[in-house]
Amino acid sequence: MELGEGLQIIDEWRIQENRFREEQLVTQGSNFMTGNGYLGYRGTFAEWRAAQYVGCFVTDTYDKADDTWVELCNAPNGLFAEFVADGQPLGVLNNPAGGYHRTLWFRYGLQTRSLTVRTPSRAHVTVTEERFASYAALHVVPARYRIESDRPASIVLTWGIDGEVWDLNGTHLRRHKTRVESGGRLSVVARTGTSRVIVAVASALQVVNGDELQNTAYHHTAETAGGRSIYRKLELTVGPEQPVTIEQYMVVYSSNDLADPRSAAVSMLESACSSGYERMWRQHQAAWDAIWRDCDITIEGDLKAQAILRFNLYHNIIATPAHSDRLPIGARGLSCQAYQGAAFWDQEIYNLPMFLYTRPETARQLLLYRHRTLGGARKKARELGYEGAFYAWVSGKTGEEICPSYFFVDVLTGRRIRNHFNDWQIHISPDIAYAVKRYYEVTGDWEFVRDYGTEILWEVARFLLSYVFYKPAKDRYELIRLLGPDEYHENVDNNFFTAVQSQYALRAAVWAYDAMSEFEPQRWSELSSRLGFGCEQRERCEAVASKLFLQPADPRTGVIEQFDGYFQLEDTRPKVLKQRLLDPAEYWGWPNGVAVETQVLKQADVLQTFVLHPWQFSDQGARANYCYYEPRTQHGSSLSPSVHAVVANRIGRYEEAYEYFMRSGTIDLLSTNRTVSGGTFIGGIHTAACGAAWQIVVHGFLGMQFCNGILQFRPRVPFWWKRVAFPLVLRRLRLWCELEETGRLIVTAERAGEGELPVRCGSREHTVKPGISVSFSVRG
Amino acid sequence: MELGEGLQIIDEWRIQENRFREEQLVTQGSNFMTGNGYLGYRGTFAEWRAAQYVGCFVTDTYDKADDTWVELCNAPNGLFAEFVADGQPLGVLNNPAGGYHRTLWFRYGLQTRSLTVRTPSRAHVTVTEERFASYAALHVVPARYRIESDRPASIVLTWGIDGEVWDLNGTHLRRHKTRVESGGRLSVVARTGTSRVIVAVASALQVVNGDELQNTAYHHTAETAGGRSIYRKLELTVGPEQPVTIEQYMVVYSSNDLADPRSAAVSMLESACSSGYERMWRQHQAAWDAIWRDCDITIEGDLKAQAILRFNLYHNIIATPAHSDRLPIGARGLSCQAYQGAAFWDQEIYNLPMFLYTRPETARQLLLYRHRTLGGARKKARELGYEGAFYAWVSGKTGEEICPSYFFVDVLTGRRIRNHFNDWQIHISPDIAYAVKRYYEVTGDWEFVRDYGTEILWEVARFLLSYVFYKPAKDRYELIRLLGPDEYHENVDNNFFTAVQSQYALRAAVWAYDAMSEFEPQRWSELSSRLGFGCEQRERCEAVASKLFLQPADPRTGVIEQFDGYFQLEDTRPKVLKQRLLDPAEYWGWPNGVAVETQVLKQADVLQTFVLHPWQFSDQGARANYCYYEPRTQHGSSLSPSVHAVVANRIGRYEEAYEYFMRSGTIDLLSTNRTVSGGTFIGGIHTAACGAAWQIVVHGFLGMQFCNGILQFRPRVPFWWKRVAFPLVLRRLRLWCELEETGRLIVTAERAGEGELPVRCGSREHTVKPGISVSFSVRG
Repeated sequence: MELGEGLQIIDEWRIQENRFREEQLVTQGSNFMTGNGYLGYRGTFAEWRAAQYVGCFVTDTYDKADDTWVELCNAPNGLFAEFVADGQPLGVLNNPAGGYHRTLWFRYGLQTRSLTVRTPSRAHVTVTEERFASYAALHVVPARYRIESDRPASIVLTWGIDGEVWDLNGTHLRRHKTRVESGGRLSVVARTGTSRVIVAVASALQVVNGDELQNTAYHHTAETAGGRSIYRKLELTVGPEQPVTIEQYMVVYSSNDLADPRSAAVSMLESACSSGYERMWRQHQAAWDAIWRDCDITIEGDLKAQAILRFNLYHNIIATPAHSDRLPIGARGLSCQAYQGAAFWDQEIYNLPMFLYTRPETARQLLLYRHRTLGGARKKARELGYEGAFYAWVSGKTGEEICPSYFFVDVLTGRRIRNHFNDWQIHISPDIAYAVKRYYEVTGDWEFVRDYGTEILWEVARFLLSYVFYKPAKDRYELIRLLGPDEYHENVDNNFFTAVQSQYALRAAVWAYDAMSEFEPQRWSELSSRLGFGCEQRERCEAVASKLFLQPADPRTGVIEQFDGYFQLEDTRPKVLKQRLLDPAEYWGWPNGVAVETQVLKQADVLQTFVLHPWQFSDQGARANYCYYEPRTQHGSSLSPSVHAVVANRIGRYEEAYEYFMRSGTIDLLSTNRTVSGGTFIGGIHTAACGAAWQIVVHGFLGMQFCNGILQFRPRVPFWWKRVAFPLVLRRLRLWCELEETGRLIVTAERAGEGELPVRCGSREHTVKPGISVSFSVRG
Repeated sequence: MELGEGLQIIDEWRIQENRFREEQLVTQGSNFMTGNGYLGYRGTFAEWRAAQYVGCFVTDTYDKADDTWVELCNAPNGLFAEFVADGQPLGVLNNPAGGYHRTLWFRYGLQTRSLTVRTPSRAHVTVTEERFASYAALHVVPARYRIESDRPASIVLTWGIDGEVWDLNGTHLRRHKTRVESGGRLSVVARTGTSRVIVAVASALQVVNGDELQNTAYHHTAETAGGRSIYRKLELTVGPEQPVTIEQYMVVYSSNDLADPRSAAVSMLESACSSGYERMWRQHQAAWDAIWRDCDITIEGDLKAQAILRFNLYHNIIATPAHSDRLPIGARGLSCQAYQGAAFWDQEIYNLPMFLYTRPETARQLLLYRHRTLGGARKKARELGYEGAFYAWVSGKTGEEICPSYFFVDVLTGRRIRNHFNDWQIHISPDIAYAVKRYYEVTGDWEFVRDYGTEILWEVARFLLSYVFYKPAKDRYELIRLLGPDEYHENVDNNFFTAVQSQYALRAAVWAYDAMSEFEPQRWSELSSRLGFGCEQRERCEAVASKLFLQPADPRTGVIEQFDGYFQLEDTRPKVLKQRLLDPAEYWGWPNGVAVETQVLKQADVLQTFVLHPWQFSDQGARANYCYYEPRTQHGSSLSPSVHAVVANRIGRYEEAYEYFMRSGTIDLLSTNRTVSGGTFIGGIHTAACGAAWQIVVHGFLGMQFCNGILQFRPRVPFWWKRVAFPLVLRRLRLWCELEETGRLIVTAERAGEGELPVRCGSREHTVKPGISVSFSVRG
């Protein structure tokens, strides 16, 4: 099934590129990447180098080079392999004779590439390579090459570790040490300039034919290049019915993983070599099968939707460091260095919900990361004159703010722009509090609340109490000088979304106070005195929450004003603004971009509250606000279309909902976006949109909500979908949900579970218990 | 005495230009202007037209043309006169043979120009013209020409009304009707397009020789030009010992003066013609003599300082519509249309103090204007969501905000800039309250407080109460999102100057409340219920004033932070920033100018508080803040140097004080400023600096303060000044102050006065009473 130019859906688990497009170097390298939450290896080719955006980005290797931006390191490429057949280098960039394809099997994160070249001696040599980032051994990326030829051909293979890597902002790795390790394996060890993280990469190659090693036809020659790379050369021959199979392993460790990353890498490499590719692959498959058992959504009757959905779920999974409770999900995952490998609000609002309902232990890891980074959030609050926890807008390992004050450059003047992402976009803190409270509601994990959640909630509340102003003339509390989700409007007051989230967070703090004092009086007392959150703070939270100014819905139209004075701005449309651009690369927002004084939004803002608090708003309210804001929204953020998909479906705009679902799901797959904006590289996988794909299907098309302990559905899926099925886990009860073509919704609780849960659909309510199915008629 | 290039001080009352510089057309037209507070006639030449910036700007003729800016009209030029001698047009722009000079005698606002041309028949013809805007008949500008020749020459004189005027923003006058009135006089009547103000100009010419009319040698021919102008032609001969003297009168009325401006103009013209130039001149002189008796300052021993000072006092006087209680002082006076002929905070803080201490009835007129414009201020407050009176940043006749939201254009992008002069620069309201309270303190005019002042004070206080935020976390009130006097830093919090003024204003409202309730219970009760300013408001004023956050002086350095976070900005200097400009015409401030993120100030801000509240700050405080802020101040505003002069003198930096005095006093005289900035014409007389000249001498050099009913001096004048003498009027007691070369300060109260006043100098205090002198030894 043709998806885009040269891009196909092969089946519900596979996409393939069959025409190489050089202008898509950045995008397809991200789309076809493999990864495992510890590292991300871009979907590039064995013979490629930095100029082709080869990259292997490793978690927990933050560094700030040349006083620019904190970002993750791109490790030396331990899977470099260049094939020269009869003197003709093999590569898609030089005279391929055909047979090109690049495939991603997202079921197992396997990337395959095949290419045929014609040698000067008229042999057609085909090399097929495949690789995967192991989910069973997170530090290893095994690769396998199969070389075939219709005539005898001599192959020279240069392989090893390419240390000349693509870096976005300054050179991170320095003082490279290249080594030939025992058994002819190679290693490169380097250290980041500022953060002093040691990164060790080891690489090995072994030639296999069938199961046999061909000893005769090759020898290795070690050579180093530029002091940063180390290669070996291998000569061998291939011929008809004499294909060669070669395996290569790359292993990465950093000094943040363990004390001696080089030894660990070399030792793990040895272990990989002795396991062999096939065995590692089987272990890896088993790990993925377990993941999909928890997270997959089956859609029957719509191959395109099914494949695109899984592509997105896949990328949300591989971006998530589920193995760790001290690492964030990067806004571009591990697909590149853009956005600093760091968490934004995207993590809690876009990436996390899928895990919350399917692998709550992963959601917990992410929230533990937020607990671990309270120190950074407290520091930020203190430095800006506030109390409590003002979470970093861009949060790396420590949680200290690493969002640069100057994110864009004004392309018209060359002057840098002081955007206020880091100091005015305060909703990040209540967003995290929202995720904590929702985590508890969905999982019932009281221990988390007791040991970690309460501290987050109280510290966020303390921040809000220190931030808020009381307006005596109006007897209300106000939140002033904000930047809401719609980043085109900085310096606004009483942004509705921020106020709703803040009110929720303040009430969550009160809830935690009451629950802790009742159920954990000792811990409550200890925490209360340590954090300075006592009876007075609890009362202030209540007072502020009850008198916090929330823009009211216009009684006539039902539309909620995005912030004070928004309705007074010029009422125009994105396409009109586009004509006002002096340069297509201009930033539309602060300080003087084309959207600043208009009602044009970058992304969903008021509508976002309808997704997070659906039970607080009526369908009429959703309709009024959707109809008002949708035409004014530019979708300058990848976070925007998914919100529109969910709300459009809710209000019965089904076609639009499906269009927004497709738009959100193909942001990267069909990307023709610029990879650089205002001088800043912004390419890579939009992991928030990937996480949102799950929400569109479950919250949007299935209308699933979990509120006050009741699981609700309101399924309105595209009419051509024959079946939708997916697992959920709520309060430790594992459920299997199926919407059948017959129009029945069946919810089954796993036999091994515990507890019970009311399920509602339409006007009916049933209770599921372990081993019991409940069923609803959806159509009629 | 040479003052600048081609510019001389002739004596302490006169400047002269003796070399014409075309590039100074705008500036010298302003400098040499004549005016009387009703109209301002630029110091141009009789034969000049719009291209040479001829202008006669008339108060109370506001109009908004082509939907651009509200501004005053430039009336048709009723003093046009073009002399052609033997076919050779006489003019400074074409072949002058010499003898050129342009003089301003600021004692009487008389502008003189003389020029000699050589005709084709080798005659040297000299025309001398002079004109003054009558202070005895405000609608009349009489002019006189004297034509001499060393050989017989035939002169053709075209005179009349030139209706093709110089307009800054759109064409204001439309539907011109030109007429030949009885007696061969001419008139043009036109109407503004939007505001429908009728402007009538009449012009007459009469030939005089000595006292005799020469009937034989001329005749008039009326002609109209372009429908907007009307001219007559006059032919006459001149020869050796046969000079000709001609008088011309221009009269202007508008429909805002009276119902039928044309009839009034024609009738006044007739009266002027019959009075004749000489008689009008004598009446005019008498009026000026009375003004100077009240306002002049004599400086002996420093001709330059004396002349420059008087030049400034002159311009402050002619800019001030002292005849009316419903008109503002324009920031450029009546010298051009720039700054919309409208009042800024300049009026109360820069122009008014000189009148407050010398002609309090004029200060009263200005404050009555603010009372009359409360409606506009209330409207502005209401529209922006506040209560009470938020005075217009740019205030015309009605007091409604006429400051355009887009004042500048970004010269780098061509995009207009949304400066927040009109909505964030809130100090305008407390500044006016400050002037009201100070007016009462200096004059003791309780009737004014009762009938007008209280209403202003309460309405300003109500505005502040509605504007201020309470910060619960810090238990204090804060003023958020401000623009202080330093306009390079918009969107700042807790600007010190604004906070000090607001605190003063709130306390003034409490004072008025208490005084009114005690002395005028009936009026108090009526006003209190009408304005909604009762006991509760009074208490809120007290509460806010006492807990309003004022930046504290740094305990180590004594420096007061200009606003929250100012000290964190890049610490650099104006000359460094200048090198960062991409275009010399760039605006330095909001949103992304070179100064925005630095500590470089446009103008005095913290230091301004030291001038307005000198008794609240110690000399050490003044020194610390002067030393900190002075090097960081760019003086991008004409309001800045005078503040520095006063504070520099206070802290003993006498040379700098004198330099700043000179700099402030010659802002226009020696102007090399651009007349257009960011696409906006900003030429014309800087009347605030003119008013400030008085303050520099009296508050600065003489160290005069009037606080708590005590008149204090602390004279430290330049050592070469032999004598300084000036009148003051305090609480109806007229004083004559003299600082003698011997180092004695003598203060004498006029015999006819009433009351008594403590006078303090150094550690001594005496009491002056009518007819009594007190004397202090200053040096030692």
